[in-house]
Order: sequence, then structure tokens, then C-alpha cells
Amino acid sequence: MSQTITFGEVLMRISPRGNRKFIQSNTVEFYFGGTELNVGISIANLGGNVKHITCISDDFIGNTALAYLNKFDLDTTAIVRSNRPLGVYFLEVGAVMRPSSISYNRSHSAFSEIKPSMVDWEKSLADGSWFHWTGITPALSKGSFETLKEGLLLARKKGMCVSADPTYRSGLWNYGVDPKEALTELLHCSTIFIGGINEMNEVLGTDFGYSNDEFIEASKLLIEKFPSIVKVFDKIRTSINSSWHKIRARMWNGKKFCETEDFDITHIVDRIGTGDAFAAGLIYGLQHYDGDTKDTKAMQFASAACALKHTYVGDVNYTTIDEVLRIVDGNVTGRFNR
Amino acid sequence: MSQTITFGEVLMRISPRGNRKFIQSNTVEFYFGGTELNVGISIANLGGNVKHITCISDDFIGNTALAYLNKFDLDTTAIVRSNRPLGVYFLEVGAVMRPSSISYNRSHSAFSEIKPSMVDWEKSLADGSWFHWTGITPALSKGSFETLKEGLLLARKKGMCVSADPTYRSGLWNYGVDPKEALTELLHCSTIFIGGINEMNEVLGTDFGYSNDEFIEASKLLIEKFPSIVKVFDKIRTSINSSWHKIRARMWNGKKFCETEDFDITHIVDRIGTGDAFAAGLIYGLQHYDGDTKDTKAMQFASAACALKHTYVGDVNYTTIDEVLRIVDGNVTGRFNR
Amino acid sequence: MSQTITFGEVLMRISPRGNRKFIQSNTVEFYFGGTELNVGISIANLGGNVKHITCISDDFIGNTALAYLNKFDLDTTAIVRSNRPLGVYFLEVGAVMRPSSISYNRSHSAFSEIKPSMVDWEKSLADGSWFHWTGITPALSKGSFETLKEGLLLARKKGMCVSADPTYRSGLWNYGVDPKEALTELLHCSTIFIGGINEMNEVLGTDFGYSNDEFIEASKLLIEKFPSIVKVFDKIRTSINSSWHKIRARMWNGKKFCETEDFDITHIVDRIGTGDAFAAGLIYGLQHYDGDTKDTKAMQFASAACALKHTYVGDVNYTTIDEVLRIVDGNVTGRFNR
Amino acid sequence: MSQTITFGEVLMRISPRGNRKFIQSNTVEFYFGGTELNVGISIANLGGNVKHITCISDDFIGNTALAYLNKFDLDTTAIVRSNRPLGVYFLEVGAVMRPSSISYNRSHSAFSEIKPSMVDWEKSLADGSWFHWTGITPALSKGSFETLKEGLLLARKKGMCVSADPTYRSGLWNYGVDPKEALTELLHCSTIFIGGINEMNEVLGTDFGYSNDEFIEASKLLIEKFPSIVKVFDKIRTSINSSWHKIRARMWNGKKFCETEDFDITHIVDRIGTGDAFAAGLIYGLQHYDGDTKDTKAMQFASAACALKHTYVGDVNYTTIDEVLRIVDGNVTGRFNR
Amino acid sequence: MSQTITFGEVLMRISPRGNRKFIQSNTVEFYFGGTELNVGISIANLGGNVKHITCISDDFIGNTALAYLNKFDLDTTAIVRSNRPLGVYFLEVGAVMRPSSISYNRSHSAFSEIKPSMVDWEKSLADGSWFHWTGITPALSKGSFETLKEGLLLARKKGMCVSADPTYRSGLWNYGVDPKEALTELLHCSTIFIGGINEMNEVLGTDFGYSNDEFIEASKLLIEKFPSIVKVFDKIRTSINSSWHKIRARMWNGKKFCETEDFDITHIVDRIGTGDAFAAGLIYGLQHYDGDTKDTKAMQFASAACALKHTYVGDVNYTTIDEVLRIVDGNVTGRFNR
Amino acid sequence: MSQTITFGEVLMRISPRGNRKFIQSNTVEFYFGGTELNVGISIANLGGNVKHITCISDDFIGNTALAYLNKFDLDTTAIVRSNRPLGVYFLEVGAVMRPSSISYNRSHSAFSEIKPSMVDWEKSLADGSWFHWTGITPALSKGSFETLKEGLLLARKKGMCVSADPTYRSGLWNYGVDPKEALTELLHCSTIFIGGINEMNEVLGTDFGYSNDEFIEASKLLIEKFPSIVKVFDKIRTSINSSWHKIRARMWNGKKFCETEDFDITHIVDRIGTGDAFAAGLIYGLQHYDGDTKDTKAMQFASAACALKHTYVGDVNYTTIDEVLRIVDGNVTGRFNR
Repeated sequence: MSQTITFGEVLMRISPRGNRKFIQSNTVEFYFGGTELNVGISIANLGGNVKHITCISDDFIGNTALAYLNKFDLDTTAIVRSNRPLGVYFLEVGAVMRPSSISYNRSHSAFSEIKPSMVDWEKSLADGSWFHWTGITPALSKGSFETLKEGLLLARKKGMCVSADPTYRSGLWNYGVDPKEALTELLHCSTIFIGGINEMNEVLGTDFGYSNDEFIEASKLLIEKFPSIVKVFDKIRTSINSSWHKIRARMWNGKKFCETEDFDITHIVDRIGTGDAFAAGLIYGLQHYDGDTKDTKAMQFASAACALKHTYVGDVNYTTIDEVLRIVDGNVTGRFNR
Repeated sequence: MSQTITFGEVLMRISPRGNRKFIQSNTVEFYFGGTELNVGISIANLGGNVKHITCISDDFIGNTALAYLNKFDLDTTAIVRSNRPLGVYFLEVGAVMRPSSISYNRSHSAFSEIKPSMVDWEKSLADGSWFHWTGITPALSKGSFETLKEGLLLARKKGMCVSADPTYRSGLWNYGVDPKEALTELLHCSTIFIGGINEMNEVLGTDFGYSNDEFIEASKLLIEKFPSIVKVFDKIRTSINSSWHKIRARMWNGKKFCETEDFDITHIVDRIGTGDAFAAGLIYGLQHYDGDTKDTKAMQFASAACALKHTYVGDVNYTTIDEVLRIVDGNVTGRFNR
Repeated sequence: MSQTITFGEVLMRISPRGNRKFIQSNTVEFYFGGTELNVGISIANLGGNVKHITCISDDFIGNTALAYLNKFDLDTTAIVRSNRPLGVYFLEVGAVMRPSSISYNRSHSAFSEIKPSMVDWEKSLADGSWFHWTGITPALSKGSFETLKEGLLLARKKGMCVSADPTYRSGLWNYGVDPKEALTELLHCSTIFIGGINEMNEVLGTDFGYSNDEFIEASKLLIEKFPSIVKVFDKIRTSINSSWHKIRARMWNGKKFCETEDFDITHIVDRIGTGDAFAAGLIYGLQHYDGDTKDTKAMQFASAACALKHTYVGDVNYTTIDEVLRIVDGNVTGRFNR
Repeated sequence: MSQTITFGEVLMRISPRGNRKFIQSNTVEFYFGGTELNVGISIANLGGNVKHITCISDDFIGNTALAYLNKFDLDTTAIVRSNRPLGVYFLEVGAVMRPSSISYNRSHSAFSEIKPSMVDWEKSLADGSWFHWTGITPALSKGSFETLKEGLLLARKKGMCVSADPTYRSGLWNYGVDPKEALTELLHCSTIFIGGINEMNEVLGTDFGYSNDEFIEASKLLIEKFPSIVKVFDKIRTSINSSWHKIRARMWNGKKFCETEDFDITHIVDRIGTGDAFAAGLIYGLQHYDGDTKDTKAMQFASAACALKHTYVGDVNYTTIDEVLRIVDGNVTGRFNR
Repeated sequence: MSQTITFGEVLMRISPRGNRKFIQSNTVEFYFGGTELNVGISIANLGGNVKHITCISDDFIGNTALAYLNKFDLDTTAIVRSNRPLGVYFLEVGAVMRPSSISYNRSHSAFSEIKPSMVDWEKSLADGSWFHWTGITPALSKGSFETLKEGLLLARKKGMCVSADPTYRSGLWNYGVDPKEALTELLHCSTIFIGGINEMNEVLGTDFGYSNDEFIEASKLLIEKFPSIVKVFDKIRTSINSSWHKIRARMWNGKKFCETEDFDITHIVDRIGTGDAFAAGLIYGLQHYDGDTKDTKAMQFASAACALKHTYVGDVNYTTIDEVLRIVDGNVTGRFNR
Repeated sequence: MSQTITFGEVLMRISPRGNRKFIQSNTVEFYFGGTELNVGISIANLGGNVKHITCISDDFIGNTALAYLNKFDLDTTAIVRSNRPLGVYFLEVGAVMRPSSISYNRSHSAFSEIKPSMVDWEKSLADGSWFHWTGITPALSKGSFETLKEGLLLARKKGMCVSADPTYRSGLWNYGVDPKEALTELLHCSTIFIGGINEMNEVLGTDFGYSNDEFIEASKLLIEKFPSIVKVFDKIRTSINSSWHKIRARMWNGKKFCETEDFDITHIVDRIGTGDAFAAGLIYGLQHYDGDTKDTKAMQFASAACALKHTYVGDVNYTTIDEVLRIVDGNVTGRFNR
């Protein structure tokens, strides 16, 4: 059995309905998310076999999170419990020119106090063929960085594919490690890079611009510096405003450059987790397509999955394989399924 | 008193709020609908006198459906009750490129087991001047087909106008009758055809394309084959995506062709029942306009009513005559009514 | 791994909030339930390993039901899908002297059309040590009766414990089999009888009254007639009104009679599934207690679980082992857990 | 066709859910009510043929009120519209020892500005056999008093039964008429008196106490003073607190005294409109029972209907004839209807 | 301490969620608003010190309104209470080509019966430096007109800035005063005019068109006729439909003309109170900007505040100074705040 | 102006509606609370002038908390902001024999990191005449203990009344200070002791039982050991189950013992904050009653306020002085306020 492994924090997201601020509300909705979990659930919803590894609180909130993961049929057997609370984030969703706002309560959460000794990586990766990580995990705490590193080293030793989404968020990384150095260590265990110019400049210390030519150049340099990496995938978002975006993707797979057309997302329902939906679609695509056009098709699949996520409220992409393929086939008019 | 008669199944529609899937929800909203009922309520909301004939369950769900029909002041005195359950459909509303999905639980419903002996057509049509039917009813069961046929034969005998919306839905028609033959019988009792190229091709066995010229040609052939039919009205939908459509209409009334401008429906609230709103507007228009421009005006009225339905959640068009006329007069900017 | 197996229909329950009727509502809540499933989830919530076997619709409603079962970490791998709809029931919850009302839409559901060939019993029972069935399943259709019978025969052959809750509901059993005969066949495969005087009179053709003495007499006769049965457990409900019940239990285990004190449930939240909670508590108790007092303790555990279910909305008992044990220990004052 | 006529104000009731105050809420529920309307709908829900006469606003709120009345299949053809707003009342529901609070916004409402010329009583009462009025209507304005008086005079002339519920509410009666005089005029047109010691003392100018003996004495005096009145019915409420009441009834029908047992309403859902439910049950009972025990049976029916109303949220008694008869038959344990 | 004073009615707004009509709903949301209050709260949310003066009902609805104002930290110490009800308005929000509809119940409200003697203006304006009024207040009743006039005379005597938004609404002004004369009196106490061609034509008795040249000419004439007025600001709305507007502003400050670019508001959440948000932004801007570009910057600030209000449900602009400045700086893409 | 000062953490409470667990929910309600804040708001709702001092997060959650406090017209001018998140607690409300459960996320909250230097006590207490503290604050962190101590020392120096509710919660006190020593220091600054046998035993190191005699003895010893304390008030709760409690109070004021009758709270809406409501009622009573019966009356007032809090959802007692006095006067039947 060939499992995709995701490792990262599970956060409880709390937000008022629609476009309300908290100050306008007394009822709120809650979901569970977290960038790596979003990728995991997204792949499971497409039909993949996914194990998510994390540390959650040993209380009724943790139980609720666990039931949420089980609902999507994730393998939750490697999850550990702690007496620290689950991390929480509060979200106010914007509209038109008003941006969304997020406030985190995660700095002493169950996950941020994880330690390498708490995860039995040998057992956890027993059935694993793919490992996905992001730049959020090493940014949270020394323990989460080291636990991840231990997992990645074993994953590479076992020859697993490792996809990296080294998103750099400057508000994190408060525990005394240099982000560039930490990410460098982790990228040396990775085979697929999911990120854009900003992420490449961050780890390369370069200053490339956003053109396709510079993207190719940066990708080549990245692959040179991190020889385990073989492909680079980038998702580009154009924001007309908070409610209307356009999405496209491009890639350099070491041999050729390719890019997709824009998806025009005229009425955004929820923008959270759309990058994770891209990563999930890409991983699923790379696992299932074959032949010469494999990378291109995977990227198209990923773009469609990403576009569809904008129509689901919550962190999670509820989209199914049929919905994605229909979009990939060019059917974006949304005619009824009966 | 001159009554419009509608005959068809009443379904309970159950759907999560907004664009949610069932898997994301634990609260749902319910409405009652059904294509012929939607037409009937729509006409009643415009001020018409409407009797709806159907068979509903003899339980609290049937009572709730009945109260729903009464609320719109429909004449419900000819409704019969059965110990079979009311049909149900589940709807997940899409957004942008994600299509809406429907799942039906209607195959052994109260209505599908209706028999001609259960409706007293003489009494039911006593005050009737117009009868509207659709292609859904004959597709459900032998009993519903035959009950409808009996009603239509009497309606024509009494000289009533009969409007037909012979929507062909291939997922139905499972009881062993040939759709084309059944529809042919029923169209021979009809005077107004509401449908497009697909519907005409279905009953004519032809292969016309979508151009205006082919529409005219098809209409002429239809009228030739079904001499009771005197006018053909067609509603054309252009889908930018699930959330953004354009609507226009065209007609051939035996003498002239006419078409309307597009209505641009940029933010769809609910797309269900919009075709029924067109039919209702058309019937109401044909009943109330006079003179040379009667057909054109009725079609414009119908298009405006159809466009407005996209702004109401539920199967039913809550629009009033004032709202429609304001749109017909070209006022689509939506300035306040105080 | 020792699994408890439950087999039976999964129904979608739809009901207005609080004590509303449908006619007062336009928003409703939905849950999934079904008597055997309720037992299964209840055991899983207590910490048991449970596999539920059923047939559900192959649409988004079926997917939602499946996610619901997964949420409680049931083993859903033996579930089959069908193109028939999931059964639905509508519930209006009463209050004080107003009774609750139920209306079913299940007669042609996915489950009612199950056939023995659709379930691979050998594989499904591979890890099974306990099988629980109820009188609802054989009452639905010939297929469901025969599929159950096949499963029970194998279960007994494998030496599994088989608990029977042969609830007799006269509104069902419409497919031409004699209830008494069918239940007799199934009881001959059973080891634990969960039921009261009514159920025993039904299968014995007797007319015992409700006293403890007659309960003992009836139990002895039952055990005589069905030698595989070794213990009889009965739950007794005293209704002050719809909102206030008292619950107690009694048993005859072949050797001794025992009964519990009344639990006084002064403010009922939801009465559905409380009998199933009793059965689940009993099974769990019989699986975990030892020694002389095993049966008595299991019955006390079952009564407490049953009482607690009255405080949870929905079909399912969300109660945990800690909550039950606290009640068993006599702590019914509901002081805070911090 | 024999119609029951009710005449009185339709109010929009707005209240937070459950036991919340407005200051705790930003979502509220709305219903329509009014004491005479509540009686009318209650009778219609029992199966009676009811016409409600009133004056409502000519705006979308009035349309919504009208649809609400139609929903219960009331005859709304005699309702008049005005450019004044519909009356509104705000309700905060108490609990335990906290009382409910009401705030009215009705003093210049559509109904309070009704004039005798606005109602065509001849036409309105054409099919009428029973007229019900309450002491609220004459208390609102000169116009409403005079319009009611005109209707009652005609009702008596036509020999209709007239039931009076002359509830005296001192906060009203602000338009310069003496309540006692006005009620005296109206009671001289009435045949059934629904009220207790307080109401009799008010119109008789007496000071009777609450004992059964004094009730009989007061009733005799009332019948002596108002010879058209033939029967007196009284409903007695004992409040343990806001959430728990007991209800019983007594009567003097000119020949004999009779009283019912207490109904113990342990978990009140909504107390508004319970007196109206008693009146409605009484009228329905008097219309349908025969023989010597007619009055007693009607009173028992009325008490049961009143008790059941406490289980429905809103002003309206949703109870059906079956529910009432079941209670009358002594079945108050609230066992399931399947 | 330098306070901005607003004076005007507080209304309770009641509306169904989303785009529903009342006839589709049984749950509604409520807010408090009123044009001058909206301006006051908007300024407070930007950080200003605001006192709102009004008369509200002395019941739990009035208490709720008061708590609402306190929530935004308004100075409510000058508010008076009355035994009349608070004014109410019902709102149905349109969509696309369907307009929103409003129905008022305010004609005998607490505020409309205010009298000059009820407000202690000396004390109320003690800390005041700015007074804002609109054309709604003098339109309601003689008392509200005269109370306002008294306040404005004192405000001018104290040398306060007085901004006037003389919105003319013909449905009001029913108490026998000539609108033009009343507004003229009040404008002679004002220093800033916030209004467009329609408002200027109304008070000047002219017939200017909408071009910028005519706007300048009209402004010059206005300033000539009302010498206390020194600046004119106008907000221009272009409605594509109910859901999509464009907003821009222009001004004449006695010396120069200036106008802003259009803001494109593609997905309107709530259009109520957007004019008030413009006035509030303008007042705040004029109070905080300095130098040559003060007026232009204030107008840009006002336009951005107005545009942002379209994204908040309710009458009130919840926008903060940071959100406005971000838009003024040209950032309308709505990227996340983390 | 004579202000009551409260000092303590503001927590966001998040809980599912009714009796649901989180695992059953996806919508939750939020409130703000905290034991000292609850006392403060309760006093403000009774009409008192209250200043609450605390440290809250400097984000939109903190803004929402601030608006919540402002809503009740608390003086919030001494509140400080921090870049740490606001504390959160999750609550699942039980029913009948099921207890409520709480899970905290407060250990690194904004308040727990408060330091004495952050509060300007001289300025904050300028108008203060009463200071209320509880045992939660010193239990949270060294900073909160020391900040409180500094405030209390000043309060006593100024001769303010100081009420102490030294609730001992063993789950807190994790920062290395001995609870008994810390509470001893703080009690030496206090004048009124609100607590029972457990609290007295904790600080006295004794082992008194629950009888009235032992209560008096313990109180005498307490007053001997803490000479600043002059009165002891105790609230006694008898739990029938989670939904039904009885409440009474007793006191020793140095001269006499007195106790109240039980309040029977048959249908609890929300039990959180009821102890705080007792303290608030007591403080308000002691501030407003005079003469010999002052203490007894204050205790009766406190008991009634406490009983009423059980009818309000949320942490806060929304009860008004009129509601309390009505109960004190013996009116617990909850008849309507119109």
C-alpha cells in the first residue's frame, strides 16, 4: 500500500459567516485546517491514501479534530496527543477591496511543542511513498523543525518522493534559527519544489524577477544548488480584488518550460487553502499521470483543483476527481450534474 | 373565473446553505418545487388564479407541502393524498466553475403512483382556461403519463389553451414507453410550444442546429406536424460559469420571428426553476397582453421574469408584476424601492 | 483484532430544530442513524472496534453518510453502494404531552434492495467476535432478511457472540414473510436476547405480563425454546411525558434475576436511539467486565449509557466511557469537568 | 358552508431564539399573531372553516402576513389593506423565575385605524355561523370598537353564535371610552362567555373571589345581566414558574358546574396564545360535540388543546385534532407516532 | 476634548439574510441605524470622539439600541428616553436587476415626537467642535425640525463646523412645512455641503445638469446664496445592477474643482449607509488632513471609506483607518492581513 | 463619582448551541467572560458604575472584546493591550446527568503576561470606592498575582471596600507560588469574604464541615486571622442534576448568622457565571441597602440575582434591578411583563 504522508500542525479555524467581522457577530463557524493537512485531505478527497502525522490536544477539541480527519478517511494512527491546547486561528473574510484578516493563537500549541522522540518515524513511514512538507512547520519551533528533519531524512533514505512547499512567512521563525539555513537543510531532502520567485530568491539569496525567463533561470539555479530537486512548479495569482482572482501555473522540469491559461474565478467563496489545493492536485497528478506529458498534465490538474477550491468554504478542498477532470477538459460553464 | 391549471409532482428540495456540499453541513434548508408547480406558483405570484393538481403523501410532510402551496394562494382543492412518501431531491449548489449537483429520491413517490381514476378531471377543470404541462410528468410512470393524457384530452375538448414544455430528460423514462411517442400524443393536445432546438429535434427526429434560421425552420416543421400548435418560444442561456449567466429569448409565432436582448445575470442566487419562471411569465404575458405586439411583449415579459428568478433562492419565483414590468421597461440598475 | 459487527440500514434523519414541526420551519438538521448503526457508533464512541456493513446510495448523499461513519472511526470497508437512494426519515420532536412523530421514506431504499450475493460474509467477519442484529432488518425486505440470515449462520459457525434485539414493528414486514417464523430462525443463531415482555410474547406466542416474576418465567421459556440464547436483558421506560422519562433495566442470565434503580431523566434532549444506546452499553459491558458480577455490571453500564443518550441530539450516543462510569459510580449531579 | 369568523389585529411578533434578550442577539425569529387570529388559525388547524377579517399594511410585510394566513387555509378574502404599517410586538421569553417581557408598537397600526366603512359585514358574514371576539379589539381605538360592534350586531341578527373573550388589559383603552360600558354593549351581542373571575368582576362591577362557589355565583349573575349569554367557561393557570405551569378549566352552563383535572406542563416551549388555544378548542368542541355531555366534552377538548399549545413556539396552535383527542383520552405520556 | 456631534433618529433595521424576501423567511437579522447615527459610528470606528443625540424608547428595545451605540464607544449621555416605540424599518435586499425594498414604521416613533425642550443643547455641545445633520431629521416632524434648528443655531454661535447632507426624500415632509424653506434655514447655519446636483437644485430652485461644469456653477451659486457654506462635496454612484456599483466623488471648495477615479465595487455586500460612510470619511478627513491638498485628500479618504462600506452588512461602516488608508494608497487587490 | 473596580482576565468563551458537543457541531456561539469581568458587567447591568482593568490582545479579537465591554457601558479606559492572544475557553454544556466540560487555552494569554508596570493603579483607582478580586487572578501567573497585589495595597490605603472571592482551583497555580501564602497576602487587604467552607479551610488550613454551626465557627476563625475582613457570605448549591439546581445563601457578619430559603431552578439555561452573579448582587446590595437589615437584604438580593443568572445564556448576568427585586419580593411565578 502506497501512502502519501503529510506532517504539520492542525489548527482550528474560527470565523464569522460570510463577510462579517467578529465585532458584528455572535455566532461563528469552525473548521480544521493547516497547510499540510489541507494538502492531505485534498489528496484523500481525490481518492488518495493519506496519513497525516501531527500532535493534537488531549481534550474534546482534540477529539473533534481527530473526528474531522477521520471523516475524510485519513490514516490517523500516527497522531500523538498532548496536554497543550490545539492551535487556533481567527479569520475575518474580506470582500471586494477589503482584505481578509487573520489572527493566530498557536505559539504554545500542542504541535509547536512536539519533539522528535514523540514520532516513531520508522513505523509511520512504513507504507509511505511520498512525503509532503511546507515552510510553516520548521518556522514554528525548534522541536517541529527537528521532528520534520528526522522524518525527511528517513523518507529520502527510503527513496520516497518529497515535495516541498517552502512558503516563507516572516511573522513566524521566532525561535532563533536562520530560516534560510533551515530551509536549505530540508530542501536537500526534497525532490519536487512547489514555489515561486519569492521562495527561490529566499533560499538562493538571489533577486530574480517574475518573468518566465527569470523563472526558468531561477529554477535552473535551484536545481543546480539542490541536486535532489528535479522539478519546479509555480502557481501565479492575479487579484482583481478580494472577491475576484485569476489563477495560472508554470513549471520547469529540468527539460522544458510550460504554463497554463488563466482560470477566471469571478466569485470567490473562500480563498484559504487554495495554494494547498494546488500542491495536492500536483502531487495527485504526478502520482497518476504517465508519459511525456505527465508534468504538464499534473500542472493542469493542479490548476483546476486550485481553481475549484475557491468555491468551497473552509480550509479543505472538497473537490472530487470528476470535478477536476471536467475542468481540465475545458468545461468551466458549470452546467448541472443530475 | 378563469383558472390556469398546472399538473405535476411536488418535490421537497433539501439543500445546504450557500455553496456548501452536504458533507460540509449539518443544517439544510428545504423548499417545495417541481417544474409544473414552479410555473403555477410563479403565475400566482404575478396575480394569476392557479389550481395545482397533484398527489402528495398523507403525512406531516404532505401537510407541510400543502401549507406551502396554500401560502401562495393556489387552489389546492383537487390535490389527492396517498400513503406513499413525497418525492425528495437533494441539491448542492455550485459556484464559478463548479457545477451544481442533484440527487433524486422520487421513483416510488406518491405522485409517481398516481392513476387516472384518482383525478376527477371534469370537476378539476371546471373553471380552467389554460393548462400547462411539461415533459417530466409523462417520463415518471405509466400512471402519471396516462393521468396527464386524460386531462389534456379534456382540456382540448373544452377549448383551453395548452402550453407544453416537453423538456426531455433521459435519466427518467424508465417504465417502458417510448418518449418520442408519448410526447407526440401529448403535443397533439397542445397549442403553445415552449422549448428549443433540442426539444424540437427530439420530437421531430431531426437534427437542426442552434442558429435563428434553423430555429425558424424547425418551428415551421413542428407546427406542420402538430397543427394544434401555433407558437414556439425558446429561452437561450449562455453560461459564463455557475455564478454568471446571460439569458435571452426568441420565438416563431407562425408569422414572424423575434428575439430579445441578453439579460446579464452577473451574480446568480439560485438557478433552479428559472426555465419555469420563463414559462410562467410567458403564460401570464399571453393571457394579459393584446394586439399585434402581444407575442413579443409576452416573450419580453417572460425573459424579465426568468432573469429575476435567478435572484431568489428556492424553486419558486417570488417576483411580482411590478418588478417584472420595471425590468421590461429597461430599468435594470436595481435602485431602491422605498 | 476482535471486531464487533453491526449490519443494517443507514437512514438519513431530517428534523426541524427543537420542538418545531416541519410546517413551522424552513431549516432542518440532518443526521445519520439506523438502529444497528446507532449501536455500532455507540460502541465505537466507548472505544470499541466496530465494523458496520450496509448498502448505501452511490451519490453525494451516500458519500456524506460514509464520511459520517468514518468520523466515528468505524470500519466501513465492507459497505456496498447502489444506484438506489438512501432511506430517509423525517422526525418531528414532541414536548410534554405532545408525542414525537416519524415519517419514513425507506421502502425502495438502497439497503432494502440488498441481496445475499452483495456481501462477502467470509471476508467481512474475518476479524469479528460479536455480531449484533435487530428485528428491523428482517422486516424490511426478503433480501435484507436473507442477507442477515447468511451472516448470522456464519457468525455462529465461527463461534461469535450474537446479540439480538428483535424489536417487532408491525408497520414493516410487508413483503410476505411471517415475522414470527423469520425471527425464530434468526434467534436460533443468537446468544444474547435484548428485549422485553412484548418481544418475548411475540416470538413465543405467549401472553406474559410485565411483572418481574412473569419476566423471569418468560425468559426461562425463551431460553428453553432457543437453547443458543443464554441471557435476557430488558430495559423499562416509564414516561411521565415526552420530556421526562425514567429508565431502569432487569435481566435473567439463566441463573439469577437482577434489576437496576430508576434513572430520572428530567429534561430529555433526544429520545431517538436510546434503546440502541442500551444495547451498545450492554455489549460493551459484556465484552469488558469479568467475574461473577459481569452481567449485573454490564446491565448497570448499559442503563447509564442509555440514560446519557437522552442528553444528545441525533441518533448517536456521543457518550464516552468516562461519562458512563461516572454515572455508574452514582454521580448523577452533573458537576463540571474542567 | 358554515364559517367561523374571527376579527382582530394581525401583529408581527419578533423575538430572539430561546430565552435570549434582544441585547444578547442579532438574529430574531418572526411570526404573526394576534389573539383573535390565533383562535382562527387554531380552529383551522383542527379542520374548521375560518374567515379572518382585519386590516393589514399594503407593503411586503402585509404580503408576508397574508401569505402566513393563507398557509393555514384561512379565508382571507375579506381582509382590507392600508398604507399604515402592520403592528409589531417584541417578545423576550423568560425562564424559571424570570418573566417574559413584551413591548408593543401598535398604536398607529393599520388595524387601529380601521373604520366601520372599511368592512362589508353583510358580505363578510354571508357564510358565517359563529363569530369570536375578544376584549383587545375594542380597547385599541374608536374605529376598531365601532367596526366590531357593527359586525356583532349583524351576527346576532343573523342568529350566529357569538363567543366573547373579554380580556381586560388596562394598558390599552387609551382613546376615551369607558371599558366597562364598551364591553357591556358587546357582551349583549354574545352567547358564550370565555373568561374568569377577573373578567366577570370587571363587567359586573363585583368583587367575587376565585373559589368554585363564587365562580358559579358570578356566572349566574352574569347570565342574569346579559341574557344572551348562556354559558361561562373559565381556564385556570397555576404557575410554578415561567417554565412550568398547570392548567385546568371549569364551566357553568346555566344548569351545571363542571371542572377538569390539572394538566401538568412541565417544560413550556411557548406560553403565548395558550388562552387563544383554549378558546379555539372550546369553539371547535361546542361545534362538534352533541348531547348531554357536549359542554363538558368541549371544555375537556379545550383544556387539552390549550395544554398542547404550550409545546409549540409562536402564537399559533399547530395542534391537530388527533393530538387533542389522544390527550382527551388520557394519553399524556407522549409515546411516539410512527 | 473635541467632539463630533450627530443628531438624528435611531431606527431598528430588520431584514432577512442574504437576498431573501420576508415571505421566504422566518428568521431575520436586526441592526440599528439611521443616517446621522451611521455617520457618527463610522467616525468613531475611524477613531473619532463622537456624541450622538437622539430620543429612544424606554423599553428593552431602547436598551438594546443604547447598548449598540455604547459598543462603538459613542458618548450616549445626552440621549433621552420616551414611552413611544423606537422606529423600525424592514429591508429586503435585492440582487442583480432586482432592487432592494424598504418599508418604514417610524411615523409616531420616539424620535419623531422629540421637542426642543427635551435636549439641553448647551450641555450637549459643551465639548463639540463639529455638528453633522441631514435632511431626514427636519423632514420627520415639527419637533425634530425645531430641535435640530435650536442645536444648529447654538453650534454656529460657538463657531463649530457644521456639515449638512440635505438629502431630500419626498416620501417624508408630511407635517406641513415647506421643505425648501426649512432646509434653507438650516443651511444658513452650515459650513460644508455634502450633496449633488439634485440637492442643490432642490434648495436653489434651479435645474442644473450632472456635468462637472454645471456642478461647479451650481456650487458657486450655492455658496453665493448661503455664505456660511465654504465647500461642496458630491458622491456619484453608477449602478451596473443591484450587486455591482461604481463610486466616485467630486468637489468645489470655492477655489478649485477636483474629482476622484471610480472605485469598482464588483460584489456588493450591503449598500445601506454607504452615503453616510462617505460623509463620515469626509468629516474625518477634513478634521485630520492639513495643507493645500487637505480637501482633495479628505475627498479621496471619503470615497475609499464609502467603497469599503459596501463590504459590510448592516447600516454601519465597520472599516478602520488602516483599511481606508490602504485603499487610498491604491491597494485594492485585497491581499491578506496576517 | 464612586466606582466599583474589577480586575481580571477577559476570556473568549466558545460553545456549541444548546447541549451539543463540538463533535456534533460546525457552528458555535461566542461570548466574553471571566470571573471578575462577569461581576463587573453584572453590577453595571444593575445600574452600577464599574471600571474593568485587564490586558487584552491588540488584534480584531481584542477589539471585539473591547466593544463587548463597552456595550455594557463599563469604563474601559484603563485596559491595556498586548501582542499576545486573548485567552480562550471551550465549553460543552451538559444536560441532566451529563456534566458540562471546559477546556482552556489561556496559559500564555495577554492577561497572564501582565506585569505591575503595565497598570497605572493611582490613576485607575482615582474614582474607586470598591475593589473586587478573585482567586483566579493570582493563580494564573506571577505577573498577574503581583499586579493584583499592588492594586489591592493601594485600594486598602485609600480605604476602599475590598471583596474577595478566593475560589481555589487546583488546575491553575502552576508558576511556583504557594496558593495558601498568596491568598493570605491578598486576604489581608480584603474586607468582605465571599466563599464557603472549602475556601475557608484552604486559607485557614482547617477541616470544617458544611453545617451552619461549623460555618459560623470557621467564619469567626477567619475574621480572627484576617482582621480586615468583617463579613463572610456563602452561596450553597444543591445539584439535582445538570439541568436542575437549588440555590441558597448564608452569612456571618461578625454579629449574627442568617440564611435564605432555597431557590428552585428547575430548568437551567446556563450555569456559568452564577457564582459571579451572586458576588455582584452582594456588592450591589451592600452598596445600596442601609440599616440593621443591610447584610441580610444584600444576601437575599445576591441570591435572587444568582438564581436569575441561571436563565441567561453566556457568562454575563443580563438581569436588571427590577427583575431582582421582584424575586426578592417573593414573585417567582414568572408572570408576563407587558
